[in-house]
Amino acid sequence: MSSYRDAGVDLEAAAKAVSLIKDLARDVTRSEVVESVGGFAGLFKLGDGRLLAAATDGVGTKTEIARMAGRLDTIGIDLVAMCADDVVCTGAEPLFFLDYIAVGKLDPVEVASLVEGVAEGCRRAGCALLGGETAEHPGVMEEGQFDVAGFCVGIVDEAELLGPQRVREGDVLVGLPSSGLHSNGYSLVRSAVLGRHGFAETPEALARPFVDELLEPTAIYAPTVLELARAGHLHAAAHITGGGFTENVPRVLPQGLGAEIDRGSWDAPPIFELVRREAGATDDDMFATFNMGIGMVLVAPPESSEAIHAPVIGRVVSGSGVDIR
Amino acid sequence: MSSYRDAGVDLEAAAKAVSLIKDLARDVTRSEVVESVGGFAGLFKLGDGRLLAAATDGVGTKTEIARMAGRLDTIGIDLVAMCADDVVCTGAEPLFFLDYIAVGKLDPVEVASLVEGVAEGCRRAGCALLGGETAEHPGVMEEGQFDVAGFCVGIVDEAELLGPQRVREGDVLVGLPSSGLHSNGYSLVRSAVLGRHGFAETPEALARPFVDELLEPTAIYAPTVLELARAGHLHAAAHITGGGFTENVPRVLPQGLGAEIDRGSWDAPPIFELVRREAGATDDDMFATFNMGIGMVLVAPPESSEAIHAPVIGRVVSGSGVDIR
Repeated sequence: MSSYRDAGVDLEAAAKAVSLIKDLARDVTRSEVVESVGGFAGLFKLGDGRLLAAATDGVGTKTEIARMAGRLDTIGIDLVAMCADDVVCTGAEPLFFLDYIAVGKLDPVEVASLVEGVAEGCRRAGCALLGGETAEHPGVMEEGQFDVAGFCVGIVDEAELLGPQRVREGDVLVGLPSSGLHSNGYSLVRSAVLGRHGFAETPEALARPFVDELLEPTAIYAPTVLELARAGHLHAAAHITGGGFTENVPRVLPQGLGAEIDRGSWDAPPIFELVRREAGATDDDMFATFNMGIGMVLVAPPESSEAIHAPVIGRVVSGSGVDIR
Repeated sequence: MSSYRDAGVDLEAAAKAVSLIKDLARDVTRSEVVESVGGFAGLFKLGDGRLLAAATDGVGTKTEIARMAGRLDTIGIDLVAMCADDVVCTGAEPLFFLDYIAVGKLDPVEVASLVEGVAEGCRRAGCALLGGETAEHPGVMEEGQFDVAGFCVGIVDEAELLGPQRVREGDVLVGLPSSGLHSNGYSLVRSAVLGRHGFAETPEALARPFVDELLEPTAIYAPTVLELARAGHLHAAAHITGGGFTENVPRVLPQGLGAEIDRGSWDAPPIFELVRREAGATDDDMFATFNMGIGMVLVAPPESSEAIHAPVIGRVVSGSGVDIR
């Protein structure tokens, strides 16, 4: 079995870093900051009943797939997706986005191509592209190499805030379909799949070349989630990113409640089975790393499930953690 | 003469990228965005007379000096400085900061060390550390290699907004002293200085080892600038970062006005003369790249100059551009 540690990503080290960082961050706070455990975005009170929600993220080594394929114009969509959809998990409307692009050598056409994707992502998320920075790191990054980071700020009325505090036993979990791998798990995908298969190869299960599947832009859920939240249909929303179902669903569950997920209630796109086989991974591994076809899990009162127009994939039960069966 | 192009940083390519990006960003806006030419932060109306100001930046290849020296605990101060002091140039109070850290291999102690600096920077800038992301890029970045990006959001009353619209002929330029090179020009410094001199070497002019000089944290001006702005002493503020005096001072000058700077009104710290000599650079080159000992230029009505407790280094005159004499 090829685990994340084999792919070079050390999740234990990550957890230790997170714990050290939390202690440091707790020291540098202000009275307007809303303490939240495991929330998808930081929350800051504006003093008038509204909260700012802010999140930052990157797209991991999906950048490397884009670089190798010479297709830079969709990574920006992924970047906005990663940030804006963290922000909307609080119920906040994404207002604006800023991008940071680090390159080995600044090629204006390449950078414009990256920003084109960012602009398209902002269009899909409904936020403004308010600024950005392009940094050239000669002698540190190789020519053609690049990394991207994004920052998104949204706004929400305190009374409309989504999160664990609203979640009740008996709530349903509704799954919004993903467009594929999204922007997580690419170190594993590169080591397990691209070691053995060419970019241009078209596996029967996918019916299109690997490169098209791997660069499929991350779905952006912000407008959908925002509309449902404003209509009062949601209690919480969990963006399924790094750590998959196993880590992200519990972030919206209060103490004493867990989630039961019915594995058979949706069909995972074929790329996930293909990655599982090539990596020799278990189902548990897969659910702890990938979105498995569901990029956003909405927690809603049972009476709202019909209004959401997406499959019910589970429910909130007494207990803890996520039980995938 | 060793110019920035020799050091691998192509400023023309950068200018072309900026122009392409501006066109793309203009397409993805919202009615709340305040159009500003050359401002230090993006501005977004909250609809209640207040504006959010947001900026993102990195610290360039100063990271590489830190990595080589094995001292990671001050780069975070630089990162907050770069972002929070862009935000405060609008007159906004920095509210919160988020960091993005990309590493080749996640070492919890190294990451904690980086975040320790970020926390100290936030403390100095008066903002909360609201969130962050640490991304591991195995196989793409080398072990020990890292990059950082920061993101800061501030708030300002529309009536208190600093900027070119307030600047008048006859205003004085007041210079707040820098702590050294700050976070710009490090690709040039590495190629011109560290090619010939060891890290541990103590040049007579510096009276301390290069490594201490090169890693001196960037000064954080936000509390000072904010206090002066709130007391009504300021018309504008220009953060002297990449592009030095030549690019940054004009960003706060309206059409028809220029700046005269009296080169003899302050003493540049010895590191700048040392870099100039080693790089074979002209004075003009230096002022177009470095802060030359002044990290923040305040534009104030003449009657406020005494309240600022820092040297008057020039004045606003009819004309355009920056004339350093």
